[in-house]
Amino acid sequence: MIGAGPVDLRPIFYPKRVAVFGVTDTPDRVGYNILQSIIFGGFTGRVYPIHPRHQQVLGCKVYKSLANVPEPVDMAIICLNQFATVEALENCGRAGVKGVICSAGGYRETGEAGRALERRLVETAEKYRLPVIGPNTLGIINNDGNFYSTFYPLKIPAGKVSLISQSGGIGLAAIHTAIDEGLGINKFIGVGNCANIDFADCLDYLENDDSTTVIGVFIEGTSDAARFARTAGKVAWKKPVVVYKAGRVKDADQYTQTHTGSAAGSFPLYRDILRQHGVFTVSSIAELVAACKALAFQPLPKGNRVGILTHTAGPGVVMMDYLKPAGCVIPALLDQTISRVKQIIGSADPPVVLKNPLDAVGLGFGRSVYGGLAEAMLADKNVDLLLAVYCLHQTWELPAAELIAAHKKNNKPLLVNFIGNWLDCRQDQEFLQTAGVPLFTAPEKTAVAASALVHYGMRQKG
Amino acid sequence: MIGAGPVDLRPIFYPKRVAVFGVTDTPDRVGYNILQSIIFGGFTGRVYPIHPRHQQVLGCKVYKSLANVPEPVDMAIICLNQFATVEALENCGRAGVKGVICSAGGYRETGEAGRALERRLVETAEKYRLPVIGPNTLGIINNDGNFYSTFYPLKIPAGKVSLISQSGGIGLAAIHTAIDEGLGINKFIGVGNCANIDFADCLDYLENDDSTTVIGVFIEGTSDAARFARTAGKVAWKKPVVVYKAGRVKDADQYTQTHTGSAAGSFPLYRDILRQHGVFTVSSIAELVAACKALAFQPLPKGNRVGILTHTAGPGVVMMDYLKPAGCVIPALLDQTISRVKQIIGSADPPVVLKNPLDAVGLGFGRSVYGGLAEAMLADKNVDLLLAVYCLHQTWELPAAELIAAHKKNNKPLLVNFIGNWLDCRQDQEFLQTAGVPLFTAPEKTAVAASALVHYGMRQKG
Repeated sequence: MIGAGPVDLRPIFYPKRVAVFGVTDTPDRVGYNILQSIIFGGFTGRVYPIHPRHQQVLGCKVYKSLANVPEPVDMAIICLNQFATVEALENCGRAGVKGVICSAGGYRETGEAGRALERRLVETAEKYRLPVIGPNTLGIINNDGNFYSTFYPLKIPAGKVSLISQSGGIGLAAIHTAIDEGLGINKFIGVGNCANIDFADCLDYLENDDSTTVIGVFIEGTSDAARFARTAGKVAWKKPVVVYKAGRVKDADQYTQTHTGSAAGSFPLYRDILRQHGVFTVSSIAELVAACKALAFQPLPKGNRVGILTHTAGPGVVMMDYLKPAGCVIPALLDQTISRVKQIIGSADPPVVLKNPLDAVGLGFGRSVYGGLAEAMLADKNVDLLLAVYCLHQTWELPAAELIAAHKKNNKPLLVNFIGNWLDCRQDQEFLQTAGVPLFTAPEKTAVAASALVHYGMRQKG
Repeated sequence: MIGAGPVDLRPIFYPKRVAVFGVTDTPDRVGYNILQSIIFGGFTGRVYPIHPRHQQVLGCKVYKSLANVPEPVDMAIICLNQFATVEALENCGRAGVKGVICSAGGYRETGEAGRALERRLVETAEKYRLPVIGPNTLGIINNDGNFYSTFYPLKIPAGKVSLISQSGGIGLAAIHTAIDEGLGINKFIGVGNCANIDFADCLDYLENDDSTTVIGVFIEGTSDAARFARTAGKVAWKKPVVVYKAGRVKDADQYTQTHTGSAAGSFPLYRDILRQHGVFTVSSIAELVAACKALAFQPLPKGNRVGILTHTAGPGVVMMDYLKPAGCVIPALLDQTISRVKQIIGSADPPVVLKNPLDAVGLGFGRSVYGGLAEAMLADKNVDLLLAVYCLHQTWELPAAELIAAHKKNNKPLLVNFIGNWLDCRQDQEFLQTAGVPLFTAPEKTAVAASALVHYGMRQKG
């Protein structure tokens, strides 16, 4: 955090002219990979690689120093060692650069000498009021502007969810999980050591970033847990924030300290202050992505009353274990809904138990029966959102079109739990999600996703 | 449980001649789907569909009754309504059938009349000392004998893990998760209402089933929790048992009762007695499959000391949250290991912190460096098993061959956490797992898998 007021991170995410320090021509170096990332990601601005000894890398002309670059740059990515990084940062500040990413490690996570070096880095940044992402960071991605600056060249589907991660590895795990889930990512921020830009600064920035509608956070620890929780809680009034806090065990500090130099702190403390500020928390990468997915795809429910439609009871039992502790209620269906259900099902033998969760057993496979039941439950005034469970079957097809129609008619949140393997569910995932209805394969993830919707739905209601 | 002593379930899993009651020619009926399953699964014995009015279904001659079948059958699958099922069971008993699966619901899960009907079913079964799977069950799969009797026709890879599930839907979820994980299944048992064959009977049977080496259980509740835990604990001396207990919330009974007629009971009670009997428990389908996978692929470690090799620190921090509470220890590396590591890495800038977890940062991508470090850590006398973290990268390839070689040389358990999406990791998953080294994409699942290995490794040590 530099000085008072929110920090402008826009030059870092939407640059027009970028300098990359330390671009060599060997594919095993960070500088090379970052240039590769920028090109591969489809950046449409101008990029200026800098290296004292190289002429050309990956088809780009290389400049000897920032002074040699023919025009002012908005932002710079510094891929030099920890010492040279501080020097380059000074040059950036002097040249009027508006934002910097420092990828090198070797700072406070390595001990006393590193701490001193990081202090110099921060002082330099503050002197020029220069926002610095990192050091010790994977980098950032802005899918809204095709700007990829990590040293893992990739191209991921664009969407409305932005991720902030203290760890590059966990950030990548979340990104790849999002790929599996068919969830597009808007921005990714690897905060690393948070030297002068902390989680709270990133949250403040994303609060006002129009292309982001949901924020997911992976945090190991921060020097100011209270500010983090307060900011997350504030931002969440405007767009949902989901937090995965790791470093829960008592001696976690020893592992987080040598990672990004942050203490993990007390997990119960984090949990309690996040709860106090009304922030939804999760316990795994899978849950983080599932919660963000539901929040990105679906409107918030008007209440906490969850309907469950299924043709197999077990998933409902599993879901309860997540829904109930999250404050969800499984309401009774209205009499008129029961009548409609009877009408749709006809006479079944054994009779279908007419309650919520509604288990239509064998009858539940049929396209029109299942679609009709979904519609009837969504129309029920007692039901604020619906979880529709369906199992992959060789004979039957998931009534995806019927589910979409039922959702559109009632405009209440609908989450589909399609029990199947990734490959065989892929096509239905795409079909449903193109229409805005998220598909999950695990009942646990479906329930966490529903809990996230209910959490923010209830919070908005006050 | 019928009478004293273990029940012989072999005729149900390895039949030569099977009767299927209630086979109609409409693809929306259970009988049809079960016949389809048997054919699709590649059953090599003889199958006799039974129906009073049909002549031929799916190319098979249909018999009017069991009396019309030209030879005695070993087992029967009854796909009739709940009332007719009891009559057919009586006929099976009289005809000397050795085992029966009853698919129909409509028994104790539906109320008093159903309870009375189920008592009649049990009395009939006991009269003939006839083991009955179900009623209210998806059926069973025996991949060791290509015998698929569920009403979800499918064909899954064969392996050494057998699953027992109270819920068909969760059973299918576990099966599809196993498909995603590249984990072969040996047997699947949908126990349903557990009328006269309970979890404990199935565990007893699988204990002596040579083709099963690991058992996974999904349970909502059983009338005899103590017997369940005791049996699981006993069987686990011979082969690992992993239990996922659902129905954890206080009012879970109301949902499990109408599912399979079993009370969920007190979750803390289940947790405590399972722990007392030394049974490893998990909290989700994903964890159930991950734990079974590690146990199926890898030898048990000689102790609880976990080495972690990575080139990104975050996953290690996440793993600690699972490993530490499970009793795992993160030991210091031996001096000679540190020397070897130094030799392999050479001079790095910033210097690699020489400790466990060993984060080789950028250097860790290299095939020979990573492979060498894995080998050095596995050779360390302080390390009982190794978790190797690697992130999918466009430039670098997972050093799969090197990891396999390191594992073979030391014969200590090795789990690979390859951070990536399903599609892009698929090939490495197959390559590694063909060589017996399991690949997981989520650090949480890797850690649970390691905890399962450590649990049973320590238990065997005493």
